[in-house]
Amino acid sequence: MAHIDLGIDEKTHPGINGPLTYRPETAKPLGQLAEVLLRAPHPTLTPGERELIAAYVSGLNECTFCCSSHSAFAAAQLPTGMTLVEQVRGDLSSAPVSDKLRALLRIAAAVQRSGREVTAELVDAARSAGATDLEIHDTVLIAAAFCMFNRYVDGLGTWAPQDPEVYARSAEQIVARGYGAS
Amino acid sequence: MAHIDLGIDEKTHPGINGPLTYRPETAKPLGQLAEVLLRAPHPTLTPGERELIAAYVSGLNECTFCCSSHSAFAAAQLPTGMTLVEQVRGDLSSAPVSDKLRALLRIAAAVQRSGREVTAELVDAARSAGATDLEIHDTVLIAAAFCMFNRYVDGLGTWAPQDPEVYARSAEQIVARGYGAS
Repeated sequence: MAHIDLGIDEKTHPGINGPLTYRPETAKPLGQLAEVLLRAPHPTLTPGERELIAAYVSGLNECTFCCSSHSAFAAAQLPTGMTLVEQVRGDLSSAPVSDKLRALLRIAAAVQRSGREVTAELVDAARSAGATDLEIHDTVLIAAAFCMFNRYVDGLGTWAPQDPEVYARSAEQIVARGYGAS
Repeated sequence: MAHIDLGIDEKTHPGINGPLTYRPETAKPLGQLAEVLLRAPHPTLTPGERELIAAYVSGLNECTFCCSSHSAFAAAQLPTGMTLVEQVRGDLSSAPVSDKLRALLRIAAAVQRSGREVTAELVDAARSAGATDLEIHDTVLIAAAFCMFNRYVDGLGTWAPQDPEVYARSAEQIVARGYGAS
């Protein structure tokens, strides 16, 4: 049970859905931030790749609800589906992603620990693998944003369903309607 | 120098101002989130108290730019000014704040470590000291949001001025015009 009375049934409003319903004034910019970062048109990073960064950081933060959600959202939008998500989360160094995406995910992992962990070496490695300034910027901000979302969800003690079907159904809605409508 | 070319002069756009100028699409919801959390009308928490939570978390994250900024913003809006900010940041247990605010700051410190560090005991202690559900919610989200802002600012390697006057001038602008206009 959540730490505060969110005024919802957590079975129908699990994870972040409770706090978003409880406080619409903050839900609005939070939804817009997720939409711009993860779904808005991007010159080079696909929604699946951006959701993969979100899922990876949420796994490092051990946030069950966010990691399950964004793993499902990534899987629904990546050609290789959940297999790739699990490979990245299991062992980034051997996962079958491009060198560029691997280098960006390493920057995301550094941000998860602390912004001060992002070194010139990590940035140079990403650039050498073909990453643009915009990709580096967005990777840093996606990783930073999930350090917020993960803490918001777990800091209020919200409930995370165990059934993968719940997250798969949520993925269908996000792919179809985005974050603004949720 | 920042890790990417933000297209600005960091002397006139220190800290978060560079990334906000570089990517207006994400700057918009970030500014709105800060405005709602820190400055919008609130039934019980003053802007000074909310800025104090932001400054405290930014200090725990060792983010020089955010900690200096929000310490100045808190000081400009608290009756006891920078003295109180320094007392809270130096030793929360002996700082002259209400028991309620002390309990909320302890929740914020837990969020800074991990959302899963917020225990029922910390929440009960805040409630016993008079905290409302809304105050607990907003404390968790302010602390979580600064775990994002701090990582954004430091993860991109932005520059933090050392001169306190820079932050004091910035405080005047925030108090007068808010976060939307910056």
